[in-house]
Amino acid sequence: MEKLFPYDQLSSFTLKIFKAIGCSESDAVTATKVLLSADLRGIDSHGIARLSGYVRLWEAKRVNAKPQIKIIHQTPSTAVVDGDGGLGLIVAPYTMQIAIDKAKQVGTGWVSVQNSNHFGIAGYHAMMALQYDMIGMAMTNASALVAPTFSKERLLGTNPICVTIPAGEEPAFVADLATTTAANGKLEILQRKNLEAPVGWIQDKEGNSTIDAHALKNGGALLPLGGDRDHGSHKGYALGAIVDIFSAVLSGANYGPWVPPFPAYVPMPENQPGKGIGHFFGAMRIDAFRPADEFKSNMDNWIRRFRSAKTVDGEDKVIIPGDPEREMEAIRKKEGIPVLQAVVDDLSALAKRFQLAFP
Amino acid sequence: MEKLFPYDQLSSFTLKIFKAIGCSESDAVTATKVLLSADLRGIDSHGIARLSGYVRLWEAKRVNAKPQIKIIHQTPSTAVVDGDGGLGLIVAPYTMQIAIDKAKQVGTGWVSVQNSNHFGIAGYHAMMALQYDMIGMAMTNASALVAPTFSKERLLGTNPICVTIPAGEEPAFVADLATTTAANGKLEILQRKNLEAPVGWIQDKEGNSTIDAHALKNGGALLPLGGDRDHGSHKGYALGAIVDIFSAVLSGANYGPWVPPFPAYVPMPENQPGKGIGHFFGAMRIDAFRPADEFKSNMDNWIRRFRSAKTVDGEDKVIIPGDPEREMEAIRKKEGIPVLQAVVDDLSALAKRFQLAFP
Repeated sequence: MEKLFPYDQLSSFTLKIFKAIGCSESDAVTATKVLLSADLRGIDSHGIARLSGYVRLWEAKRVNAKPQIKIIHQTPSTAVVDGDGGLGLIVAPYTMQIAIDKAKQVGTGWVSVQNSNHFGIAGYHAMMALQYDMIGMAMTNASALVAPTFSKERLLGTNPICVTIPAGEEPAFVADLATTTAANGKLEILQRKNLEAPVGWIQDKEGNSTIDAHALKNGGALLPLGGDRDHGSHKGYALGAIVDIFSAVLSGANYGPWVPPFPAYVPMPENQPGKGIGHFFGAMRIDAFRPADEFKSNMDNWIRRFRSAKTVDGEDKVIIPGDPEREMEAIRKKEGIPVLQAVVDDLSALAKRFQLAFP
Repeated sequence: MEKLFPYDQLSSFTLKIFKAIGCSESDAVTATKVLLSADLRGIDSHGIARLSGYVRLWEAKRVNAKPQIKIIHQTPSTAVVDGDGGLGLIVAPYTMQIAIDKAKQVGTGWVSVQNSNHFGIAGYHAMMALQYDMIGMAMTNASALVAPTFSKERLLGTNPICVTIPAGEEPAFVADLATTTAANGKLEILQRKNLEAPVGWIQDKEGNSTIDAHALKNGGALLPLGGDRDHGSHKGYALGAIVDIFSAVLSGANYGPWVPPFPAYVPMPENQPGKGIGHFFGAMRIDAFRPADEFKSNMDNWIRRFRSAKTVDGEDKVIIPGDPEREMEAIRKKEGIPVLQAVVDDLSALAKRFQLAFP
């Protein structure tokens, strides 16, 4: 069961919550925009459904609502940022702007971040580059849910990679993908409906392939993109590892099994080698390579050729990365955002906790 | 049937061939080293087995043996290089060095290349960065063999991505992966042995999943990493697309279905939008982020934690990307390189063509 809410209603409530935990007005505005961009784009697992989770991290003193974000090392094209334990929803756009500013100066900018927290959807941050005619990149590590090929243990997060590329008359190319076969949010849907998972999504605690959607909660693991060795899971594992290393080994954040968990009730891993969660951002100015107009007209040509490819039976068209989320955003801006009853209840409890009203 | 050859014997023969088609001494040395690095590392599909293919491209005037490689546009951290139709085996290391030199100056260097040809294994080029304590990246597009999710048509190459990351006492992390479920070379082995392919590797010309290893030759296509939509093929497709766009739309090379084919007898695609094949290279100086020693000791910690993970039954250890190729290289340097009889015959014919001796 779910209920539709206009964007503005969810937005003004979320803003009040972030202010209630001590965020400045401008930080609360940013965090709200980033968080709800997930709901608008149809990535419901990363949006308002997580609001109470962020609040619980703050209550557990795992999130600093008034971070002093600062650059701790830099060169003309790089920086390392210390997020001071702030919300990733605030640290990430701040840092992406540094990458963009560096790209304005020397063609590209690359920033690795330590001491941050979960940053919402990677797409929001990487898409910031588009308005400057830049390619944008965003990645983050996350707490370990994924078993590398041949491992019984969970050692990697779902570690997403987002790459955004501007086009001319066509909408931008926006690929935002977890480096696992299936995102955790999709598995949660199957769990709720008591359905089986496709082979290749998960393994049980012994490392055997399973279709039991609940296996993850019982000591199992998500599988890297590819699913098993025969289907290239070593590639998904390598991609997740690259995200982990760029985000955390390069910045001094925690990596692998030491990444802080999102649920505040899960104890912190022992012997952490770094600070907080790590992210990595990049921006490349198109005209640092070729004139932006030339590039964009070739991107239009690329997109049109792919979108008009002959399709297999039963499918209308080849999808360009970013198409489904953009279409969803147009619908939800007009018709409202569906929120599950369980999330409505959660938000009502949050409202009560801060003496606010919801809905 | 195969025969073992010492590296030096294959190397001196290959050098003579490259000189025979008109390469300068130093270019021939480079091309030989790059080509045979594939054989040493166990990626037999990309090594000496392709030597006669490169020669046929030169005979068809699709390769320029004396290229004037030049930078056609640059900023402090970026460049676009025109490969002048040269062998990718020569253009790629030349260009990777430009990326490295830029990283020395401003922290990172990023170079997109037009008007090139097949460059051997991505790993050779990306690994050049390691000796400078830099992270290296190399990618290339290739002629279309891969159908995007829902497409009946082949629109992408196997478009590999290589990322190399230095460590301290441990060997470097080297991930070199085609963005397909399986590399074409693996399929060729099944074809030769008349074995079936696993589900998720290929589709037939109607776009139906098939286990017929010969389907690719009969109008079918390789599938993006993931295999089908349920298993994340839209992610493999997006990754292959990113490689295509960075390598070719950014540089002015051909992209998508317009990339020149490797076999010289296959006609060039019509209405090509760019020049030759495209590549993309990157180098990031570790100490542009944090002190190299600190980084490397954390990489050692990362590698040791993953390598010592509890494994699923029947497997000894979790593999770090680059382990199998490095182990293969140590063996083949000592014991020699196995060459299939068909390739030996091909090389003998090549020897005759240039009045040389092989073996």
